Amino acid sequence: MKPVTLSTAFITALSTLTATTVIATPRQEPITPIAPVRITEPAKVELGKQLFFDPRLSMSGVISCNTCHNLAFGGTDNLKTSVGHKWQAGPVNSPTVFNASYGLAQFWDGRAADLQEQAQGPIQANVEMAMPHNLAIEVIQSIPGYRKQFEAIYGDKNVSLNNLTDAIAEFEETLITPNSRFDQWLLGDNDAISVAERKGYELFKSSGCIACHNGPAVGGTMYQKMGLFGAYKSSSPSQGRFDVTGIEADRYQFKVPTLRNVELTYPYFHDGEAETLGEAVDLMGRLQLGRTFKETEINQIVAFLSTLTGERPDIDLPHLPASGINTHRPEPFK
Amino acid sequence: MKPVTLSTAFITALSTLTATTVIATPRQEPITPIAPVRITEPAKVELGKQLFFDPRLSMSGVISCNTCHNLAFGGTDNLKTSVGHKWQAGPVNSPTVFNASYGLAQFWDGRAADLQEQAQGPIQANVEMAMPHNLAIEVIQSIPGYRKQFEAIYGDKNVSLNNLTDAIAEFEETLITPNSRFDQWLLGDNDAISVAERKGYELFKSSGCIACHNGPAVGGTMYQKMGLFGAYKSSSPSQGRFDVTGIEADRYQFKVPTLRNVELTYPYFHDGEAETLGEAVDLMGRLQLGRTFKETEINQIVAFLSTLTGERPDIDLPHLPASGINTHRPEPFK
Ligand code: HEC
Ligand code: HEC
Ligand code: HEC
Ligand code: HEC
Ligand SMILES: [Ca+2]
Ligand SMILES: [Ca+2]
Repeated sequence: MKPVTLSTAFITALSTLTATTVIATPRQEPITPIAPVRITEPAKVELGKQLFFDPRLSMSGVISCNTCHNLAFGGTDNLKTSVGHKWQAGPVNSPTVFNASYGLAQFWDGRAADLQEQAQGPIQANVEMAMPHNLAIEVIQSIPGYRKQFEAIYGDKNVSLNNLTDAIAEFEETLITPNSRFDQWLLGDNDAISVAERKGYELFKSSGCIACHNGPAVGGTMYQKMGLFGAYKSSSPSQGRFDVTGIEADRYQFKVPTLRNVELTYPYFHDGEAETLGEAVDLMGRLQLGRTFKETEINQIVAFLSTLTGERPDIDLPHLPASGINTHRPEPFK
Repeated sequence: MKPVTLSTAFITALSTLTATTVIATPRQEPITPIAPVRITEPAKVELGKQLFFDPRLSMSGVISCNTCHNLAFGGTDNLKTSVGHKWQAGPVNSPTVFNASYGLAQFWDGRAADLQEQAQGPIQANVEMAMPHNLAIEVIQSIPGYRKQFEAIYGDKNVSLNNLTDAIAEFEETLITPNSRFDQWLLGDNDAISVAERKGYELFKSSGCIACHNGPAVGGTMYQKMGLFGAYKSSSPSQGRFDVTGIEADRYQFKVPTLRNVELTYPYFHDGEAETLGEAVDLMGRLQLGRTFKETEINQIVAFLSTLTGERPDIDLPHLPASGINTHRPEPFK
């Protein structure tokens, strides 16, 4: 299952489904609506959800994916940098998992090709869950309720890292937030956004933000240097793409983040240094466009950005399966 | 709203509702079935749920009630002792919040009269959420989505500690797990438990466990000394009721814990020292009854205890309201 960019036919079908009367002529814009997800493998999604919420994937038994990507809110922890195993501070800000499947790659520096590869990172990372892969597999394998699901879905008694991360990725692909007011406007509903919000969008296009933040996720389609019109001063050790490629031109190139639900994913930037959306917009103007916005302009852009908040999926808290008698017990203080 | 002990009339009504054919003569036993909850104030329950899941009630922005009382599992963290603010180890094991409303008082030592009083503890406790009450109130008050709900429910623009803990307690009172196999058996369904489980229950009664673990929650009705037939050796600093009353006779008296869902709330005892249910049963026999059970007896009692696992409520993950522009930001590393 992959979220798809909406075809015009599908958009028309969708429009006729919505309650509000909409003009059946979707707008042609550099930002496109995101499609609601159609779940084709519900059992796999359910398994992935359980794993996403399961703190037993961490050495301490305290930290789950949801600790740093809180699905009760914007899919992040809203901290400057995350708190990981033994209260260690992570080096960068936690990005949202909502609509992450639209990214050209995963992580700020794109070091994982896709969600499945990504999911291997945090389990083992010492500043996150600190759980060696073989122990994570052993733990999940020792839980009868998990073993049963893996066997039913993958036809294999043995839990593998491949299948485990496949299930998590499948769940994450359902974390799509369709039907934002901006998408309603894109689909032809003129009243879905206010005049000020519309002005903000026009400014977003005319000033050049759209060059980097575009597509269905309003970002996630490319890497760009942070600090084109002046160096971005940061105390974060991250050097972006350079850390992956070692190529000088990639220094401080970061994946352009999605701006969907951006009003919920504060604080901003890879180092979490900008506390408010106004601050982030102001800095983007100066550093990426060499332009100093007036306060009213900033407010208009912020107003536009708030129309990108979509409908977050309703998530039933999973019922996690009980540990087996031989399941390795968590060791938070070791 | 208070969970009530089932009246015979209500039991009969219930029995006729269940799908399995049951004899319409509920058993008269020292353990009584628990009633499904009827929610009378849904808006208050919803508010309480949001607060229960909200990490902004902690200084770090990382820890919510659900961190230590995981509703995706047995209402505990399944750790020997909890991990709190800045990874501090708590002094005692986290009890389940499921069916906690049945307790004669709250905490292992009963130092809070009820759920509302209890909820004041963890927010401020330095080893748990480390959030001074005035700051917690200020944070919740600064979140527009919370302010609106408090005003609608309590008719007061100002969030108070009283109302905040009232809402949390109201939510917790819905955390009831009815319809366990043992309750089905109590209500007349002979086939709901196996022969071995039935034998375990008979042993539970005849050997004397029932003297302390009885009532709808199979516990929670009294304090008892841990270690009647020999001292219980523990490295925990807790002295039980003595810490509350200072009366010598109260030393090492603990609230008898509920045994509902006990197969999910490992590890056991106030210090979390017993890893398995078998170990806990063995020790209870020796220390509370002066009796050494044979292995088959332990297995039978454990089998009986596993029939006490009830239906955990389906919980939709709440959608937490966004922080306001002036909301005090969490400080995990300060
Ligand atoms: C302790 C905090 C923490 C935990 C636990 C954690 N993450 Fe993350 N996550 C982060 C941070 C920080 C990043 C950014 C790291 C980077 O880009 O170098 C991230 C990045 C991601 C991304 C990439 C998003 C994007 O747009 O690039 C995804 C997807 C993700 N995490 C999913 C997960 C899953 C699945 C788990 C559990 C298996 C998990 N995370 C556990 C903090 C955490
Ligand atoms: C040349 C490319 C480029 C342009 C032009 C650009 N951005 Fe960005 N934007 C980025 C990159 C790269 C980041 C991530 C930087 C980082 O985290 O260090 C980013 C981050 C952001 C963020 C923070 C998102 C988050 O979740 O942390 C916001 C908000 C934002 N941009 C808005 C804008 C606005 C508004 C404009 C126009 C005024 C704009 N951007 C112009 C590339 C660009
Ligand atoms: C850091 C871990 C932690 C956090 C956070 C936490 N608790 Fe607890 N909770 C515990 C521990 C440990 C105990 C037992 C303390 C004692 O008995 O002295 C406890 C006891 C309780 C009890 C008493 C149950 C009983 O049967 O006696 C209730 C109810 C409860 N907590 C609810 C909450 C609520 C509501 C919150 C959030 C406002 C919360 N807890 C936050 C660890 C935690
Ligand atoms: C005289 C009172 C008394 C008797 C008799 C008694 N218990 Fe207990 N039980 C307690 C107390 C008090 C605790 C809590 C002790 C502690 O945590 O330090 C407890 C704890 C437990 C626990 C651990 C629950 C948890 O969540 O940590 C189990 C299981 C248990 N009892 C089962 C039994 C069984 C089975 C018997 C009979 C063999 C029995 N008890 C007899 C008072 C009693
Ligand atoms: Ca952020
Ligand atoms: Ca326990």
